Amino acid sequence: MRILLTNVSLVEAPVDSVKTVDLGIENGKISLIREHLSASSGLGSEEDPWDRIIEGRGRLALPGLVNAHTHLGMTLLRGYGDDLPLMVWLQEKMWPLEDQLTPEDVYWASLLAIGEMLRGGVTTCGDMYFHMEATAKAVTEAGIRACLSRGIQGIGGSGLRGLVDGVRFCQEWQAAANGRITTMLGPHAPFTCPPDFLHKVVDWANRLGVPLHIHVAETMAEVAQIANEYGTTPLGMLAANGVLEVPVTAAHCVHMQAEDLELAQDKGVRIVHCPGSNMKLGSGIAPLPEMLAAGLTIGLGTDSAASNNKLDLWGEMRLASLVHKARTQDATVVPASTALQMATYYGAMVLHLEKVGRLQPGWAADLILVDTEGLHWYPPSDRQASVVYSGQRTDVELVMVDGHIVYEDGELLTIDEDKVRYHIDQSARRLGLLPVNPM
Amino acid sequence: MRILLTNVSLVEAPVDSVKTVDLGIENGKISLIREHLSASSGLGSEEDPWDRIIEGRGRLALPGLVNAHTHLGMTLLRGYGDDLPLMVWLQEKMWPLEDQLTPEDVYWASLLAIGEMLRGGVTTCGDMYFHMEATAKAVTEAGIRACLSRGIQGIGGSGLRGLVDGVRFCQEWQAAANGRITTMLGPHAPFTCPPDFLHKVVDWANRLGVPLHIHVAETMAEVAQIANEYGTTPLGMLAANGVLEVPVTAAHCVHMQAEDLELAQDKGVRIVHCPGSNMKLGSGIAPLPEMLAAGLTIGLGTDSAASNNKLDLWGEMRLASLVHKARTQDATVVPASTALQMATYYGAMVLHLEKVGRLQPGWAADLILVDTEGLHWYPPSDRQASVVYSGQRTDVELVMVDGHIVYEDGELLTIDEDKVRYHIDQSARRLGLLPVNPM
Repeated sequence: MRILLTNVSLVEAPVDSVKTVDLGIENGKISLIREHLSASSGLGSEEDPWDRIIEGRGRLALPGLVNAHTHLGMTLLRGYGDDLPLMVWLQEKMWPLEDQLTPEDVYWASLLAIGEMLRGGVTTCGDMYFHMEATAKAVTEAGIRACLSRGIQGIGGSGLRGLVDGVRFCQEWQAAANGRITTMLGPHAPFTCPPDFLHKVVDWANRLGVPLHIHVAETMAEVAQIANEYGTTPLGMLAANGVLEVPVTAAHCVHMQAEDLELAQDKGVRIVHCPGSNMKLGSGIAPLPEMLAAGLTIGLGTDSAASNNKLDLWGEMRLASLVHKARTQDATVVPASTALQMATYYGAMVLHLEKVGRLQPGWAADLILVDTEGLHWYPPSDRQASVVYSGQRTDVELVMVDGHIVYEDGELLTIDEDKVRYHIDQSARRLGLLPVNPM
Repeated sequence: MRILLTNVSLVEAPVDSVKTVDLGIENGKISLIREHLSASSGLGSEEDPWDRIIEGRGRLALPGLVNAHTHLGMTLLRGYGDDLPLMVWLQEKMWPLEDQLTPEDVYWASLLAIGEMLRGGVTTCGDMYFHMEATAKAVTEAGIRACLSRGIQGIGGSGLRGLVDGVRFCQEWQAAANGRITTMLGPHAPFTCPPDFLHKVVDWANRLGVPLHIHVAETMAEVAQIANEYGTTPLGMLAANGVLEVPVTAAHCVHMQAEDLELAQDKGVRIVHCPGSNMKLGSGIAPLPEMLAAGLTIGLGTDSAASNNKLDLWGEMRLASLVHKARTQDATVVPASTALQMATYYGAMVLHLEKVGRLQPGWAADLILVDTEGLHWYPPSDRQASVVYSGQRTDVELVMVDGHIVYEDGELLTIDEDKVRYHIDQSARRLGLLPVNPM
C-alpha cells in the first residue's frame, strides 16, 4: 500500500519545518517528504500511482507516540484500588487478583489497552507482564508496534520457570508481526531478583542478544531495602551484578542519587520516566531535569492502567513538563520540545528500536494526524508547545503503524471495540471486580 | 422549559446513589430526583407534561464543573510565551500585550474561553480581568454562570479609576442574565495593592455587599516582597488591613505558612487551588492536604489559558489529586471524592454561590451528562474515581446551565465557533501573535 499524505504541517522536534509538506509512505517506511506541490503537479498521475492520497490540509503530522513502560494485561485492574497506600494496593489488591488472571483475561485486557492507546496516537509500547503470548497475539492482530518482555522474579514469583518462559518468548516472538514485535527479558526489579538470578538473566540476555526491561528505584522503600541488603543503590546493585553490561531499559528511576546518574550515563542505561503513575502511587517525583542534564536517554511511560489510570501519552507529556517546573520552581525546565522528543524519538531509543520515532525518509511509517480546529488550539501558536500544553489525545484523527492505517474517522480498524467491552465485562465479573455502584 | 433526564447514574459526592434515577428540571432548578420508573409509568402523560425527555441510560449525571479562578480575556494570549521564567513571561510577554487589548479582543477571547469550558463540562467560572463588560456580554450570550470582577491595582495599573470602574461594574451587572452573573471586587494582590488602596476597596465591598477576589501568595517572590515591606505574610498583610473582614476568594495560596492556615480558617477565607498554572509557571505546589486538614473551603481553577494552557477542569481534578500524592509520597491524600467536590460544590461555595454545585432538588440545574462507553472507562469501576482518574473532558455529552441546554451532540448551541475562530485570528494577527511556524 502506497499512501500519500498531502499538505500536512510537520511537527519534528527539535525544529519544525515552516512549510507544509507531502509525505509518501511505501513498504512501511516514509519514502519521501517534499514541499507541497499543487494538485496539478502530477499527484496520482501515471508516473506516481499512489494507492491512496489523504488530504492533510490544516492537520499536524507527528511521529506516533511511544509509551515505553506498560503492563497491558493489568488494564483489567483499572480503578481497582485507587487512593490506597502502595503496599496495601500491591499486596491486598493487585497480587491476589493477578494470581487469577488467565491468558484469555490478558488477551482482552491487552486489546483494551491497545485500543485506548491507538485512539490516543500511541503507536509503540514497551510492555512487561506475564501470559505474554496472549499480549503478543493482541499486538499482532491490532497492528501496534511493541517491545515485549515476560516479567520474571527471582523470589516468590515465577523464578527459573519464568526465566525459561521469558527466554522461549524471545526465541519465538523476536521480529514477529512483520518486525513490529521485538523482545526483551524482563527481570522485575533489584528487590525481587537476587544476584544469582540476575546472573542467569544476564547470561541469557547475552546469548539471545536482547536488552533487559527492569523497574529501578521506584520507591523509597525499595531504596531502603537495597541499601540494607546490599549496601548500595538499586542501580548500584545492578551494576555490581553485571546487569548494566547489557543494554538496559530502566523504568521509573524516581529515587536516583548523583552517583546513579553518573553510572547510568557511563553504562548507557536508558530510562523510562512515568510521572503519572509515580505521582498517583505516591512514589515521588523523579529528578528528570537532572537526568536530562546528565545526558541520559529518557522516554515516557504510563505504567499500567491500574496505577495511572489512563494510557494517555498526551497527558504524560504535559505532566512531564509541568511537574518538574513545579518541583524546581523553574518554568524553563523540560520545555515542550523536550517533552515531545521524550514521547517520540527518545522513547523509541529507550526501547532500543532503530529508525522509529521521527518523520524522516527511511524511517518507520508510524505517524499520526492531529486536528487543530478545536477551540483549545486557538489562537494558533508554536506547534510543539500547542501539542504539549493545549492538545489532547482526542484530537488524533488518523493513526498509522508500519505503513498501515489502524485508526481513522473515530474508528479502530483492527479492533472490535464492542467485543472487547463484552469480554472485559465478563472477566471483571468473574474476578469480582465490578463495583458496588456500577456505572 | 421542563426537561426530564431519565435513567441516569448520579455522581453525587461524597456518596453516590446506587440506583439510576430520573431527574426533573423546571425553572432553572432541579425539581425532582426519583428512582427510575419504567416507560409505562406515566412519563409524558397528561399529568406530567415534560417539554422534553432525554434518555440518559448508561450516562453519568454530574453537577456542572466550577472553574473558580480564570482570566477569560487572556485566552487570546494562549501559547504566547511558554517555558519562560515567570517575570520574563509577565514583563516581556503578558503586560505589553495586555496594554493593547481592546474590549472587542476581550469579548472574543471570552467567547473562545467559554466555548472551550462548556464543551468540557464547566458551567460556572470565577473571572477577574479588565474590559469586564465585554466578558459580561459574552457570559450573557453564551449562557454560562459566572462570578465576575474587574481586576484592579493600587500601583502602576488602574488605580482609583479602576476601583470606580469595578464598583460601577458590580452595580450594573450584579444578578444580571437571569441571576447567572454575580459580581465581586477584584483587588489584584497584596503586592500590587498598598494598604490605603485596600482600605478603599474594603469600604466599597461593604457598601456593595460583594466579596473580594484576590491573588494571594502565588510565588516565593511575592512572599519575600511582602515580608520585606510589611514584615508579615501576604495573607497576614491582608488581615492587618481589614481585608479578611469581608468575604474573600483567595486564588493560588501556594506559599502558605502554618499561621496563614489558622488565619484563613479563622476568617473563613475561601481558596482557589490552581495546580496546572502554579506548576507551569514554576510557582510551586500549594499545601492542599494541609489546607484541607485545616477545614478550609477550597475550589479548583485553571487560571488563564496563557499560563495553563487549557481551561480543563477534568485535567485540574486529576492534577489536584496526583501532584499532592507525589509531593507527600502518600497515595491516600486528596482522594477522588475530594477532587470531585472541589471541582463542583466546594468551587461554588468558594465563589459564594448558593445552591449551586450539587444535584439536589431545589438546586440550580447546572449539570452535565457523561458518556462512559469509551475504552478508557473499562472495566466499569467506582464512579467518582473513574471520573477523576480515567475520564476526560471530551466524554461530556450534554451540558445544562440554569436549566438550559448549551451543549449537545458535539455542538455548542449558544456560540458560533467559526465566528469565534475568525475573530480570534484577526485579533492575533493585529497583535502580532501569530508564530513563525503557524499551524
